[in-house]
Amino acid sequence: MEIISGGVTAAKGFEAASAAAGIKYQNRSDMALVYSEKACKAAGTFTTNVVKAAPVLWDKKIVDSNTKVHAVIVNSGIANACTGEEGFEYCRETAHTAAETFGINADGVIIGSTGVIGMQLPIEKVKTGIKMLADAKNASEENGHLAAKAIMTTDTKPKEVAASFHINGVKVTIGGMAKGSGMIHPNMCTMLSFITTDANISRNALKAALSKDVKNTYNMISVDGDTSTNDTCVVLANGAAGNEKIIEGTKAYKKFVKALNYINETLAKMMAGDGEGATALLTVNVVGAKSKKQAKVIAKSVVCSDLTKTAIAGHDANWGRILCAMGYAGEIFDPSKVDLKFESKAGVIQIMKDGVAVNYSEEKATEILSQEEVIVIADIHVGEKKATAWGCDLTHGYIDINADYRS
Amino acid sequence: MEIISGGVTAAKGFEAASAAAGIKYQNRSDMALVYSEKACKAAGTFTTNVVKAAPVLWDKKIVDSNTKVHAVIVNSGIANACTGEEGFEYCRETAHTAAETFGINADGVIIGSTGVIGMQLPIEKVKTGIKMLADAKNASEENGHLAAKAIMTTDTKPKEVAASFHINGVKVTIGGMAKGSGMIHPNMCTMLSFITTDANISRNALKAALSKDVKNTYNMISVDGDTSTNDTCVVLANGAAGNEKIIEGTKAYKKFVKALNYINETLAKMMAGDGEGATALLTVNVVGAKSKKQAKVIAKSVVCSDLTKTAIAGHDANWGRILCAMGYAGEIFDPSKVDLKFESKAGVIQIMKDGVAVNYSEEKATEILSQEEVIVIADIHVGEKKATAWGCDLTHGYIDINADYRS
Repeated sequence: MEIISGGVTAAKGFEAASAAAGIKYQNRSDMALVYSEKACKAAGTFTTNVVKAAPVLWDKKIVDSNTKVHAVIVNSGIANACTGEEGFEYCRETAHTAAETFGINADGVIIGSTGVIGMQLPIEKVKTGIKMLADAKNASEENGHLAAKAIMTTDTKPKEVAASFHINGVKVTIGGMAKGSGMIHPNMCTMLSFITTDANISRNALKAALSKDVKNTYNMISVDGDTSTNDTCVVLANGAAGNEKIIEGTKAYKKFVKALNYINETLAKMMAGDGEGATALLTVNVVGAKSKKQAKVIAKSVVCSDLTKTAIAGHDANWGRILCAMGYAGEIFDPSKVDLKFESKAGVIQIMKDGVAVNYSEEKATEILSQEEVIVIADIHVGEKKATAWGCDLTHGYIDINADYRS
Repeated sequence: MEIISGGVTAAKGFEAASAAAGIKYQNRSDMALVYSEKACKAAGTFTTNVVKAAPVLWDKKIVDSNTKVHAVIVNSGIANACTGEEGFEYCRETAHTAAETFGINADGVIIGSTGVIGMQLPIEKVKTGIKMLADAKNASEENGHLAAKAIMTTDTKPKEVAASFHINGVKVTIGGMAKGSGMIHPNMCTMLSFITTDANISRNALKAALSKDVKNTYNMISVDGDTSTNDTCVVLANGAAGNEKIIEGTKAYKKFVKALNYINETLAKMMAGDGEGATALLTVNVVGAKSKKQAKVIAKSVVCSDLTKTAIAGHDANWGRILCAMGYAGEIFDPSKVDLKFESKAGVIQIMKDGVAVNYSEEKATEILSQEEVIVIADIHVGEKKATAWGCDLTHGYIDINADYRS
């Protein structure tokens, strides 16, 4: 697998565009398009929140059926959640406008929305935006980048990534873009993530690969514990690479899964590290667990702990908070067997051995905890399984952003 | 039931004291005593965290056996959690010193600790502190108040409450003190809460009353979602009131339960409202639920939502975040049937009707959300059950306190 530059337009046959449609924000792009002339198989995972945004309901129907997808239309001003019948009608209108514009079927249009909950979409602006997107679309890396920028809300950086690999000498490419910074605690998927690939792959294989992978990537990040109403991850495969069709259980499938995991994990880490107000990416590795589930539950509990996150913000080796968060995760382990280390590019330091503090340098610990990526390694010494979760520190910036987000 | 002034010394036969033992802090009291010459029945509930502090292990043994309790010794400098064998040995030494000092058995000494995790206690200072407490103890309201102050850590206010009621003309009193401001997400009980009563009550009735009540009081508050390693709630009953013995299922038991609930709920609300950095107590009433459990799960999800809490800090009627938090609680309900109101002493305002926003005055909503207690009322219209949870807003103050707590 080779990591390459680009995002949603890296794979063959995919175009993208952005537009400033004035949905909510002024003077910035707020609509994005991903488009494939060639029909795509689609797989998707969505929020488990009981309160589902209208576009989530719309998209779920599409990926659950076997219709071919050509376009993704996203707006980043209004979430279109808690908007009732009227909100769902706007999804329909959006899809029908896109269908007319591109000469495709309305059930081939995936819709993504993110932003304020409860407001209705200014549908005429959305329709105008779709025409602007149609005029602007092309397959350039730059347009992929513009689309990644257009879907940002409180994100400080666009998030895109791409990779390629070979199947029997045929190059296959996969790329993606995502947004997410607050209300990030995905459960089935993250805020918005759109993956494109030119792989020729069976629908079942695409679904299986995505479903399995989101559990170890997007579902293992948390910014603030709030599972959004809009979480959506959709992967589109248009087959343009011309490789022999990938089916489950083959060597080619494994290659695809590996590349997809790289794309998803990279986008997930970008989201965690760009959490609202964050100054550090917090990576928690739980090792020595008796099961993968046990390791995941404990790792996620630590990245969700406000006290751990504020300690990281303060570069404070307050490891008691980490032990505390491990302890209330809901998994049984023996605290008197836990080893704990902090690691970053400034080095590695052991903090606990057999459940009690070792004699470590606070100065060195602070140096390690002052880097942009901080890794916690907790060994619970009951087995061989491990898992990783990603989060971020909790800072004044988070309060600044969220105590007055709507205005 | 009559609400009266005082705390742990309100009930007959209970004495209290505080001491400045220099455990960790200087120039403040940091040890507290609650004492009854008359032997007490004791009931207790403790943290469900797998990582249990040494005093939790010590106390659990005492309340699970049928030994008579005379004294509670608390320090508020060091949590004595993650301290291994050495930490447990210090509990034993604390109890034995208290036993010698007061002429009681060591297994009649309940120990409470709160503060930094991982540090060992300076046991000689603790021992000296116990002598100071013994010299200072008396049954005055003032000494009860001094004890409530001595157990504070990041609390801004001491927390105490008392009430009395009559059983066949005999006056029975119950009072308590608690501390808790951060790492507050009790699960079985809160940080530290000590209740005293002169009621003559059977051990089974005392246990049953406490176990049931903590589920609706301490376990329904959250400051930051972090379930502490030290959560402890102990109630001591010395029988000094001389009432006919209270047993389960009687009218007298109901009276006792009602008074105990008032004490626990009041202390729990005080903790939530005094959450680290908090400027407002957030009360969430979920009504119209199909079961008490459903109502509790949804209410607690809302008070735990960082996004809801920052919105309250910003006096922003960002109700979408509340719906979102209700939606990911893990309970099924129909979002299109939800009604939502905000209430405070500034008035009441309806925000949602049947799952969509009604036309409300943002100005009025902001006024309502700017008070010291803000109530959210969510009616999910599926049944008759209801529950209340308490939390607080999330502010810069929380970050200030926790990004550098240890120093």
